[in-house]
Amino acid sequence: MPKRLITLTTDFGTADHFAATMKGVILTIQPGAQIVDITHEVQAFQIPDGAFTIAQAYRYLPKQTIHVIVIDPGVGSARRPLLAEVAGQFFIAPDNGVLSIVFAHQKPKVRHITNDRFFLHPVSRTFHGRDVFAPVAAHLASGVAPARFGKLIDDYLQLTFHRPTQTGKNAWTGSVLKVDRFGNLITNLHLNDFPNLQTRPFRLLAGRQPITRLALTFTECSAGELFVVVGSSGHLEVATNQGSASKILGCGAGSAVELTIY
Amino acid sequence: MPKRLITLTTDFGTADHFAATMKGVILTIQPGAQIVDITHEVQAFQIPDGAFTIAQAYRYLPKQTIHVIVIDPGVGSARRPLLAEVAGQFFIAPDNGVLSIVFAHQKPKVRHITNDRFFLHPVSRTFHGRDVFAPVAAHLASGVAPARFGKLIDDYLQLTFHRPTQTGKNAWTGSVLKVDRFGNLITNLHLNDFPNLQTRPFRLLAGRQPITRLALTFTECSAGELFVVVGSSGHLEVATNQGSASKILGCGAGSAVELTIY
Amino acid sequence: MPKRLITLTTDFGTADHFAATMKGVILTIQPGAQIVDITHEVQAFQIPDGAFTIAQAYRYLPKQTIHVIVIDPGVGSARRPLLAEVAGQFFIAPDNGVLSIVFAHQKPKVRHITNDRFFLHPVSRTFHGRDVFAPVAAHLASGVAPARFGKLIDDYLQLTFHRPTQTGKNAWTGSVLKVDRFGNLITNLHLNDFPNLQTRPFRLLAGRQPITRLALTFTECSAGELFVVVGSSGHLEVATNQGSASKILGCGAGSAVELTIY
Repeated sequence: MPKRLITLTTDFGTADHFAATMKGVILTIQPGAQIVDITHEVQAFQIPDGAFTIAQAYRYLPKQTIHVIVIDPGVGSARRPLLAEVAGQFFIAPDNGVLSIVFAHQKPKVRHITNDRFFLHPVSRTFHGRDVFAPVAAHLASGVAPARFGKLIDDYLQLTFHRPTQTGKNAWTGSVLKVDRFGNLITNLHLNDFPNLQTRPFRLLAGRQPITRLALTFTECSAGELFVVVGSSGHLEVATNQGSASKILGCGAGSAVELTIY
Repeated sequence: MPKRLITLTTDFGTADHFAATMKGVILTIQPGAQIVDITHEVQAFQIPDGAFTIAQAYRYLPKQTIHVIVIDPGVGSARRPLLAEVAGQFFIAPDNGVLSIVFAHQKPKVRHITNDRFFLHPVSRTFHGRDVFAPVAAHLASGVAPARFGKLIDDYLQLTFHRPTQTGKNAWTGSVLKVDRFGNLITNLHLNDFPNLQTRPFRLLAGRQPITRLALTFTECSAGELFVVVGSSGHLEVATNQGSASKILGCGAGSAVELTIY
Repeated sequence: MPKRLITLTTDFGTADHFAATMKGVILTIQPGAQIVDITHEVQAFQIPDGAFTIAQAYRYLPKQTIHVIVIDPGVGSARRPLLAEVAGQFFIAPDNGVLSIVFAHQKPKVRHITNDRFFLHPVSRTFHGRDVFAPVAAHLASGVAPARFGKLIDDYLQLTFHRPTQTGKNAWTGSVLKVDRFGNLITNLHLNDFPNLQTRPFRLLAGRQPITRLALTFTECSAGELFVVVGSSGHLEVATNQGSASKILGCGAGSAVELTIY
């Protein structure tokens, strides 16, 4: 069997021991496993942020990679742990919609992880990253067949935060999926869905401020000016040259934006 | 010999070249070594923070793992470099108490590292992480016997910051070991030492503010309310729902807390 | 062929998917490649910061290491991608001066990377880290000969930000290369060029404030006092005990400093 990579996407930060503890659990079960951090800085409990980040990254990882995503505000409650197969890769995550964008592109095969012989015991109420998700990933990497972790299900949570709502003939309400390190607001409005944005006048309302300019690069605008740019992901981003659009507009993850195309 | 993992715990941050330089030294001596970052964000010079972090993480790493801990305000002074064996693992650190919590659970075998043929020369006055600790770890990982690094000692520094002081029949003075990324104050008060906390009324004074509620989860309290919660480590933490207890109380690493159980 | 290490130095931060995406591209082309992060926290677009950081780190990495440096404000423009060989190692970076300090010590062999069969297609306008630099590094690590990536050139950009300007018999104007995590200002004034600094009175002007004290250690000065210290790199640093010189002086990367030796 070819060696399988394991990636980690969490909101644990890197100042505490949590991410390293997960790696320790993995390397105890599967010595020599290769682990890649996607990020540990998903904004705390922000499922859309985690969903966007893993959806951007996974397609560049090799086939058979095992992705572990722990943004888990419901840890300790009845929410189910999932093992999904899609696009030739594996995804291990809580059933809270954090895989919604990955699942939007291709129908997944999803299992409810129930076989606790692959868990670390005793299973804590607060750290399933260590006790459930990490050991399951390591056992899967070591060659355990997916079917042994639990049964296929169809009723996994598929959220729609990544899709704007059409509110008029030429009007949509969207939202901010993530604020990137520069303060740019990455919205759930995707250029593929608005191809005429590049030729028609439009207005994007963010934090009550109307933005009407589509820029190709950051440097063509004056400092402090707000504009819309198509990010490397194809999503519309609200940005400003040499500043933080998030701070200027008082908007963050989850904030609403309104698009009208004239 | 099975391949040995090396972990790094420092206060170097990740914006500078320091942690990477240590990895370069290790990989030059021991090509292919597997290195896991515990964290590089221990608060600068905060020995209790480093001590707590490595003590939480190490038990989840495989047997024979080599832990390098560089929180070293006394670098360049006469403080000794140590190589300790405990719990089937190795710990390389300055003799400043940063291993006190690891040593509290099990008696260690401790050596004073003196054999400078395993150092990087010339040894700088300011960066023993690169010149002493990293190369010693790499040589140990490559199979050099512990005894070759230096002689056994008994008078290593064992601090007591991880233990509260009893100040009355039902009263203790403790302190904050670490502020986690959410602003929760992780104290040195451990549930094991106060089993009746869950059934008796109590008062915890932090930053002059009395806290009397023990919560099982964060979400059962109202926003802004301060409460005590038992963290995944078993330590009592002062927290607030959707906010930073550290900011509200003006407390940080080293701040005193007073516990009274009625 | 011995396995080659790949290092990454970028200004991408670690909260987004960018660094992980580069690793995914590398590991898809060269499974099992060992990747070391130098840092992803170079200040955004700050070429001197990146130049200083890689120049400090590379000499501690093994021979044949492949360094990928992506501080690339000109991405999408005509600036050339380079593959350099120097000091027994490889450097892949945009032709914007970010290798100036590495090149200052030893004459490099520099190629203009033009062979797009080693790129990821379609090549985006905004993310050459993923589409050009990462895949070229992976192909080089897998044994492709340097000459296959492009022709040797001599007119690569060699900037001089790392060299102070002499403005009088005993006067020099320098600049801040980097602000480290403690707020120390790392200047381009190197002790090697000012050996008599340790025996003669001097004045360093930073943010209009004169500093006249050379300290050997941080702790010998009183809290809040500004002083000059020789960092582990040999560069003069403006620092203060228990505080941020950067904040006190209002100086950052690129700020000018004036040195006079009496």
